[in-house]
Amino acid sequence: MSPEPHVPLTVLQRGTPFADRHIGPRADDLDRMLATIGVGSLDELADRALPATIRDGSGVAASSSLPAPVSEAEMLAELRALAARNTVAVPMIGLGYAGTQTPPVIRRHVLENPAWYTAYTPYQPEISQGRLEALLTFQTTVSDLTGLPVAGASLLDEATAAAEAMTLLRRAGKSTSPRFVVDADTLPQTLEVLRTRAEPLGIELDVADLGAGLPDGEFFGLLVSYPGASGAVTGPAGLIEAAHERGALVAVAADLLALTLLTPPGELGADAAVGTTQRFGVPLGFGGPHAGYLSVQQKLARQLPGRLVGLTRDADGNPALRLALQTREQHIRREKATSNICTAQVLLAVVAACYAVYHGPDGLRAIARRVHRMAAVLAGGLRSGGVEIVHEAFFDTVTARVPGRADAVVTAAHDAGIALRRVSCDVVGIACSELTTIAHLEAVWAAFGVAVGSVDDLDAATADALPEALRRESEYLTHPVFHSHRSETSLMRWLRRLADADLALDRTMIPLGSCTMKLNATAEMEPITWPAFADLHPFVPAADAAGTLEMIADLERWLAELTGYAAVSLQPNAGSQGELSGLLAIAAYHRSRGEAHRDVCLIPASAHGTNAASAVMAGMRVVVVATAPSGDVDLDDLRAKIAEHADRLAALMITYPSTHGVYEEHVRDVCDAVHAAGGQVYVDGANLNALVGLARPGAFGGDVSHLNLHKTFCIPHGGGGPGVGPVAVAEHLAPFLPGRGVVGAVSAAPYGSPGVLPISWAYIRMMGLPGLRRATLTAVAAANYVARRLGEHYPVLYTGPGGYVAHECILDLRRITKETGVTVDDVAKRLADYGLHAPTMSFPVAGTLMVEPTESEDLAELDRFVEAMIGIRGEIDRVAAGEWPVEDNPLRGAPHTAACLADKWDHPYTRELAAYPTGVTPGVHDRKVWPPVRRIDGAHGDRNLVCSCPPVAAYGS
Amino acid sequence: MSPEPHVPLTVLQRGTPFADRHIGPRADDLDRMLATIGVGSLDELADRALPATIRDGSGVAASSSLPAPVSEAEMLAELRALAARNTVAVPMIGLGYAGTQTPPVIRRHVLENPAWYTAYTPYQPEISQGRLEALLTFQTTVSDLTGLPVAGASLLDEATAAAEAMTLLRRAGKSTSPRFVVDADTLPQTLEVLRTRAEPLGIELDVADLGAGLPDGEFFGLLVSYPGASGAVTGPAGLIEAAHERGALVAVAADLLALTLLTPPGELGADAAVGTTQRFGVPLGFGGPHAGYLSVQQKLARQLPGRLVGLTRDADGNPALRLALQTREQHIRREKATSNICTAQVLLAVVAACYAVYHGPDGLRAIARRVHRMAAVLAGGLRSGGVEIVHEAFFDTVTARVPGRADAVVTAAHDAGIALRRVSCDVVGIACSELTTIAHLEAVWAAFGVAVGSVDDLDAATADALPEALRRESEYLTHPVFHSHRSETSLMRWLRRLADADLALDRTMIPLGSCTMKLNATAEMEPITWPAFADLHPFVPAADAAGTLEMIADLERWLAELTGYAAVSLQPNAGSQGELSGLLAIAAYHRSRGEAHRDVCLIPASAHGTNAASAVMAGMRVVVVATAPSGDVDLDDLRAKIAEHADRLAALMITYPSTHGVYEEHVRDVCDAVHAAGGQVYVDGANLNALVGLARPGAFGGDVSHLNLHKTFCIPHGGGGPGVGPVAVAEHLAPFLPGRGVVGAVSAAPYGSPGVLPISWAYIRMMGLPGLRRATLTAVAAANYVARRLGEHYPVLYTGPGGYVAHECILDLRRITKETGVTVDDVAKRLADYGLHAPTMSFPVAGTLMVEPTESEDLAELDRFVEAMIGIRGEIDRVAAGEWPVEDNPLRGAPHTAACLADKWDHPYTRELAAYPTGVTPGVHDRKVWPPVRRIDGAHGDRNLVCSCPPVAAYGS
Repeated sequence: MSPEPHVPLTVLQRGTPFADRHIGPRADDLDRMLATIGVGSLDELADRALPATIRDGSGVAASSSLPAPVSEAEMLAELRALAARNTVAVPMIGLGYAGTQTPPVIRRHVLENPAWYTAYTPYQPEISQGRLEALLTFQTTVSDLTGLPVAGASLLDEATAAAEAMTLLRRAGKSTSPRFVVDADTLPQTLEVLRTRAEPLGIELDVADLGAGLPDGEFFGLLVSYPGASGAVTGPAGLIEAAHERGALVAVAADLLALTLLTPPGELGADAAVGTTQRFGVPLGFGGPHAGYLSVQQKLARQLPGRLVGLTRDADGNPALRLALQTREQHIRREKATSNICTAQVLLAVVAACYAVYHGPDGLRAIARRVHRMAAVLAGGLRSGGVEIVHEAFFDTVTARVPGRADAVVTAAHDAGIALRRVSCDVVGIACSELTTIAHLEAVWAAFGVAVGSVDDLDAATADALPEALRRESEYLTHPVFHSHRSETSLMRWLRRLADADLALDRTMIPLGSCTMKLNATAEMEPITWPAFADLHPFVPAADAAGTLEMIADLERWLAELTGYAAVSLQPNAGSQGELSGLLAIAAYHRSRGEAHRDVCLIPASAHGTNAASAVMAGMRVVVVATAPSGDVDLDDLRAKIAEHADRLAALMITYPSTHGVYEEHVRDVCDAVHAAGGQVYVDGANLNALVGLARPGAFGGDVSHLNLHKTFCIPHGGGGPGVGPVAVAEHLAPFLPGRGVVGAVSAAPYGSPGVLPISWAYIRMMGLPGLRRATLTAVAAANYVARRLGEHYPVLYTGPGGYVAHECILDLRRITKETGVTVDDVAKRLADYGLHAPTMSFPVAGTLMVEPTESEDLAELDRFVEAMIGIRGEIDRVAAGEWPVEDNPLRGAPHTAACLADKWDHPYTRELAAYPTGVTPGVHDRKVWPPVRRIDGAHGDRNLVCSCPPVAAYGS
Repeated sequence: MSPEPHVPLTVLQRGTPFADRHIGPRADDLDRMLATIGVGSLDELADRALPATIRDGSGVAASSSLPAPVSEAEMLAELRALAARNTVAVPMIGLGYAGTQTPPVIRRHVLENPAWYTAYTPYQPEISQGRLEALLTFQTTVSDLTGLPVAGASLLDEATAAAEAMTLLRRAGKSTSPRFVVDADTLPQTLEVLRTRAEPLGIELDVADLGAGLPDGEFFGLLVSYPGASGAVTGPAGLIEAAHERGALVAVAADLLALTLLTPPGELGADAAVGTTQRFGVPLGFGGPHAGYLSVQQKLARQLPGRLVGLTRDADGNPALRLALQTREQHIRREKATSNICTAQVLLAVVAACYAVYHGPDGLRAIARRVHRMAAVLAGGLRSGGVEIVHEAFFDTVTARVPGRADAVVTAAHDAGIALRRVSCDVVGIACSELTTIAHLEAVWAAFGVAVGSVDDLDAATADALPEALRRESEYLTHPVFHSHRSETSLMRWLRRLADADLALDRTMIPLGSCTMKLNATAEMEPITWPAFADLHPFVPAADAAGTLEMIADLERWLAELTGYAAVSLQPNAGSQGELSGLLAIAAYHRSRGEAHRDVCLIPASAHGTNAASAVMAGMRVVVVATAPSGDVDLDDLRAKIAEHADRLAALMITYPSTHGVYEEHVRDVCDAVHAAGGQVYVDGANLNALVGLARPGAFGGDVSHLNLHKTFCIPHGGGGPGVGPVAVAEHLAPFLPGRGVVGAVSAAPYGSPGVLPISWAYIRMMGLPGLRRATLTAVAAANYVARRLGEHYPVLYTGPGGYVAHECILDLRRITKETGVTVDDVAKRLADYGLHAPTMSFPVAGTLMVEPTESEDLAELDRFVEAMIGIRGEIDRVAAGEWPVEDNPLRGAPHTAACLADKWDHPYTRELAAYPTGVTPGVHDRKVWPPVRRIDGAHGDRNLVCSCPPVAAYGS
């Protein structure tokens, strides 16, 4: 007889559910948390904290078609099966996506390293010096190669970078013309995104063949491609000069690799350059994520959208990096914003920077030479076989005319494992890349039916196809960083050093209210670097991407199910793009009903600034709705504003739970009021982590939402990107999803950033609906636990029904600051001395800290944070008591570096207290992390803008 | 016309050779190094440093059949093609190798993390606290589960652990009998290794069916299997008691997972327990590497072979870990050694420990229950179909009797993707594991031709098959570490904290003279965790392992080519096992010629202690040959010893270049003299990194060598293992390679540790002979550069012809110590303050430091080390000048923790000097690493031996 109670084999077989690994607190920990909160169970917490009006009756569980959860191993087996259904052809399609070799050392030490991929945006620069330096290296790479002095820290992709350049030129230039002239030889996906973005802003796009010179008439800006989508290389200097003479500014879309051989745009007089850095080692990933770039002349520096890293100094006068000119950023400027860009593509920008560092200028040039010679010899072989080559001058892409035979050639090449571009029934494009070999050339020739005798002879007889006049003479990448890490050992150590300067999820919780920093599980991350997912060109035939497309279809279906909407598009490659897509859908919907005049977008005062910026970009007028003392939307003001704008009301944008971290009681009433006035309701999904499995925006009143897969669905933040911002819509808005005919594309690639979608797919697959629901409730429990434990030390600013918060809470320091002089900055920086990452500072309310612990933190980590905050409160009290002056205490002195301990010490507190506050004990188990710099002086750097790698001497000063 | 000089496309196509990434110095750096050395080129260095007598005329290049080098991408593609030729069946063969699920978080953060896999053996405990703690956790896991208080830090595999247990019982017990009784139901590979190891030591192996009780007659020890190889579970308490009564000691070979349910050996009275920890998350890898274990009663602690981690305290009195009882180790005991074990399996032991931590006692027990229930229901199903089940009591393995049908059943299962064990033509073994599912059971039943109706019904009707009397009652894994890291987030952070406490190749050069610590390139490492390599059971049909077997054949061929031998066996899974294999081959060769009396092994005084230990284990008598003042073998003494022992001369063991880091001039003469006397020459390949591509031991006089793939061929040290020690032999010795009929197996698995062989395969494939040769010469240049630069500060003890060293150099501190009191320890620990790993201390000469920089360090890192050593010399001078007392100066105080800086300070040197010696500047780019503990007091711990996780209070004291 068995002494064990019988557990059925079917149950035993399941093993430890993944949810038990994803969710931090163990059962007994959760009991203690719930006891602190004063509820008996997670379900009771849900009943008390969530308004019944938004709950889905018996929950979504009953109706869900989400599959039952599987284990990590089972999930990986399923994804492997999907991956096996992809066919990875040699990518010779081009069009802005080139084959590239990610050096394995970069793959493992960056893309597969949580120290890089789990980091947050470097808003706390003292604990972000590593990735700030990697980004400065990225900026220097772009700046040097484009010959323009200031480059941003990456944009979403080449197409959106071009759109940002378009609006930048418009606001920076003197012309009042609404016309923007675009080279007809621009990448088609860039043209489409430009169209999408121009229309609501009243910009007239003029796509012109520039071979004959500039079109007549006034225009504010010009975009030239260099090389063109066709591969043709034409020197743009004349066009630039002519455009300048006519009062327009000029951006050049340029290929960075080509610029190692060609005179850069800056030297040709361009005002800006845009493009992608994908071919610098970033996997194709069926279209993304990759890092776009935008660089400008010095005079335009302060106009740059997105993030910009710059040099400044710390409290000890040592050089230090931080995000420069943050006041430009739209999250502060709201409806005055000129761009809604929040997310950069930091992780991919880091990869591209590492690629430049690893190869150095000589290595990059050698790659460019190889790529060019492959193209030149390819063209030579085709010509020798009687094939017409359309352009004399090209870098890597050969356009061949084969009247009536294009399909046959493309098919024959595909049969040989090579993907070419079918330009038309008569024309084929062939793009060479770092991956191209002579064997590939031979296969291409064979596909064209051309027999080439000796490749050596052909090679010797074939001249370069780059115009001599455009040969680059200037140096680039002269900074020592591009010459110091050329062995794998040296690069590995550089990456480790940079990573060690940063504080990411692999060392501490990151309790941000503005972002959900949950576990990015290894099993979720592993598939993204599998070649079958990573090496797929976005424009291959659908059959070649069968596995990825099925994964995308699954994910769209699951997300629709979880949000209560009818359709989802994964195209938007950042939350901001999801917002824009949703608003464009609303605008198009109104237009389709003959109500094009509806252009007012109501936005609560507490909303994230991006909301307003996106509304402006969608051509809407922003009307702000006041916040009630409770923190909720002021219903009276809302009704007044609806009444005031009823006939022009397009939409209300509302975040739920609110940015105040509260489940507002009356959200259904709000939605109903908007609908009654003919408006659409946009529910911002930023806080969806408080809803999944409990309530669905599409079911309680939303017509459209964007989600942040990098918040709720486990795509890591990558140090500030990639983000993925799918847009989910109700049935009536489905025809207006981006790229489906009515509304144009918002991203360069059809599916945005499919390279990272396996992460969210894996998460949902392993959690199942019960796991997701448990995660949501645990996150809410964690936030309420923190709120209860800290409430007596720091007032919790807003709570919802029953005194509960949702998944985050706002700690109000304003009175403390007023009474003691200790600021939120002081508290945030002091947390670094505890080895903790600070909460969100001063958003959405200045003078407060917003804390979102997430479900992935266990009780020990929650308590570590709570104890640190209590310890800090004790230090504040000593300042208040006059024991320490407000200008010299452990808070104002924070963070403390190890170097400052070793130095002379004349503070009224001890070194020991500075370095090892309560609860931080030395030893293997300490959580001590030493910031490499002290408090950073951002203003100093803004006054003296330095945004590329400074001379080494600058560091030595 | 092209402005660029024409470079043929065939040349351009090659891209950056991998050798340029593997080798540190750039061309201009190398020029500076050569200038310092005083030679004009690497070839000139070779001509000057290497005796012409060993050079291969025009080098091996001309005759080499090694393939031309390929790029990382090409190599990965080739390995993927080989991997694709493997067929991974569900492993149900058992025999000590179980299917297991490596948690992805452990795979990524340990197996794929250079912070873990590039670390060296923790001989510098102050910068090794992380892996020491992981190993202590491993020891605790083994100790708790086996119920024996002291467990070592892992052995090579279960079979060698059993052999070590055998000799341990012999020396620890009181019996003078040479007989060792072994359970006939022991794993066959264990039996074979026991035979190999017993014979030369004069141990008589008595393999007995213990079902009828103990055999008659005296014996010194007994090995019982629990469960047996057949799966049968029989309580060994009676046998143990009976053996004890007859004066013998008892070891139990036990399955750790079974011990979560079964009364452990220690509670049954066993003196020792052995086994493998493979099924704790360590990939099968076609047989290894895995971590074997050996645990013992307290009274036997000091008899343990291999490494043992224990608790002690540091200079500040804080708890700290280090390798305990190091005086037991054979490298000091030489011919008095009782074991030749050097390498442990640290990396795999860490994986196993993490697995125990991640699952905790309840998780492990749940897995064991699942495995057992699968087996029980499997047996129930078979019985219901009329199949005879041989044993009533079993844990995971079911033995089924199907007269005449075994082959058909095994084939049918294999067709269904499941690998079973063919025991005989009538008997099939089926082992369940963590991977077993109900679907697998159904496939097995089908293969047996059994139809099972409802699995639920069968399950409900099937009782457990474990004897109630053996049910485990005692607790295990009660330490908090087994209860604190159960979420992925928590485990990830624990692993990061531990890794951060250690100094591995990802942060600093490790300039060990005793080991070659070169780059372990990512491209080499990636394939080892591919499922097609990682998930292969060692006893699958050869066709299932076709890709791995071809890789092994390639590697054997290439290594033979590079060493000048006729045949290579990759079976030895550590250098020590390679040595033993080589000596057993020599002994068998003499025996085959009727010269069995030849048993004298000459060993130079400077040899690594393992040489002597291996000779003793091979049944030889060690005769030491003196060292001349030059450091070379004393030729006169050698001739005298040869003359003295001529008729009994079996072998000379010589390391080349010598352990003094010198290319001895007369090695050919030495070899000739030995051969003339009928002896064989064993050339220890430990220093092969100074020969590859330049000279071949098999060509200049060696008959046999072992290689260390973990030194010369890039397998990482893993923090102290795995090692791989292939043995290479001349034609006449080829029949005597291990496991080929004459000499038995030396490792459990036929090919030792195939799981890591892709690393060496990849290295050779990417380097090609020219790259390997360049690596060797660069390593020699680096050593000579260091010797030249440091020679004026620290005398270089030995040099060879022309004043050159080989690939390493010995810095002599004896006079400095005598004059100033500053010791090699002081210098080594002070290097930690510089963020550098110390060289080898006091080997092969006490009071010296031996430095081997390797080819992978670039000039900047070599200079960092040199400058640090010069800086330290300056500090020594200040001690000598009386500025600081010998007992209180930055050297004796080293290493300095951050905590000691924060504390009060009453030293005659500043905090700043302590923490930031010359050249170490704070900031992102500093190379500062903070040791978590100060100087460790090893003797204190040896007096108070604590070798499992101490109560938490111990840390708090």
